[in-house]
Amino acid sequence: MRAARLIESAGVVLHDALVHPAVLALARGRLVDVGKRYGKVSTEQRFINRALVEAARHHEVVVRLKGGDPMLFGRAQEELEALAAAGIEAEVVPGITAALAAAAALKASLTRRGVSRSVAFLTPRVGRDESPSEWLPAAMGADSVVLYMAAGAAQSIAAQLIAAGRSPATPAALVESATLPQQRVLATSLEALASRELPRAAGPVVMLVGEAFACEDAVRQTIAA
Amino acid sequence: MRAARLIESAGVVLHDALVHPAVLALARGRLVDVGKRYGKVSTEQRFINRALVEAARHHEVVVRLKGGDPMLFGRAQEELEALAAAGIEAEVVPGITAALAAAAALKASLTRRGVSRSVAFLTPRVGRDESPSEWLPAAMGADSVVLYMAAGAAQSIAAQLIAAGRSPATPAALVESATLPQQRVLATSLEALASRELPRAAGPVVMLVGEAFACEDAVRQTIAA
Repeated sequence: MRAARLIESAGVVLHDALVHPAVLALARGRLVDVGKRYGKVSTEQRFINRALVEAARHHEVVVRLKGGDPMLFGRAQEELEALAAAGIEAEVVPGITAALAAAAALKASLTRRGVSRSVAFLTPRVGRDESPSEWLPAAMGADSVVLYMAAGAAQSIAAQLIAAGRSPATPAALVESATLPQQRVLATSLEALASRELPRAAGPVVMLVGEAFACEDAVRQTIAA
Repeated sequence: MRAARLIESAGVVLHDALVHPAVLALARGRLVDVGKRYGKVSTEQRFINRALVEAARHHEVVVRLKGGDPMLFGRAQEELEALAAAGIEAEVVPGITAALAAAAALKASLTRRGVSRSVAFLTPRVGRDESPSEWLPAAMGADSVVLYMAAGAAQSIAAQLIAAGRSPATPAALVESATLPQQRVLATSLEALASRELPRAAGPVVMLVGEAFACEDAVRQTIAA
């Protein structure tokens, strides 16, 4: 509700590409789509930082509206530092991150007594100067693993987890466009994911791996497929 | 907003002890406090499961309202399974989990380009038949670590992380009662936390460990202490 009030009161709302239209409809000020696509990311992040500072100089309230939560794979730090450097006060309003939306969609708790006492959130996406397997130690140390931006990478992730020692029978799930009307869920195993390439996804995909995602049949039957 | 509408429409709201009064005030139906304290947990969880099923048999909409997100250290699975076993349909509405509230309070992103590409969520709290050090592998594998239910355990956690190989200089923060008016923040290092026992906290405490929590001074100065 705090988020809704801020969006309503903002003179400018700088928003990501994936924000739901019903949320954008709350805005009374100017809407600016600063959605990034992969590619020229660093240039565009600098552009967003500048646009934020500029907007804050001309309006009492400016909202930077991201999909999910800004503090998880959201590049919030770079924007907060740009604002701090310009002497502009900022507040962070938390949101629903994709992993929790996916867990709700699957009706599978990320932690579960006697089954999962730790969860790792990570991404297989590789930045410049980063090695492709850096995500493996975190994925092997935790009971449950949630991989962000996993579209197109499920087969490779599953194969690498099996090669590193996770049992091929480990439950694994893919959730595309979590909580949106076009949501799609695939609940399967690492072995099945490793065995074939999946069709290209239309929306963002979260991949979940671990015994916590072996839902009871009674629960699974109620999942909207 | 979906959560608010559900709370308004529920015939009964079974709620945790730590839910904010402003949220409870949305309810028009009966409020039942099923808040658990540590101790006789398993008995009380069974009581909650039964109360949920019973309420769902007498009301069209029943809300089980938890603090944070139900799918992270929230015991949601046991309640979902009790409902499924009774043939009662359930939906999970995600919420703001304590780690993200704490990150917002600290203005420190859990992931950060070139610094942190993975986050582990875990708890040092030990259940029956569980060994006290089970949380260590997950905490060592991830760049950022967020420990739930860390009140009273900060000194021991910091000492164990250093003993396992994390640098004593690693930034560490404690956030008590994140996002509430009585929020308190302590930003320090593992070494400092390991060196002394802290006074008893009045509210729930989240502990954050990792280079991502070494905020720029310009950002840190804006943190409400």
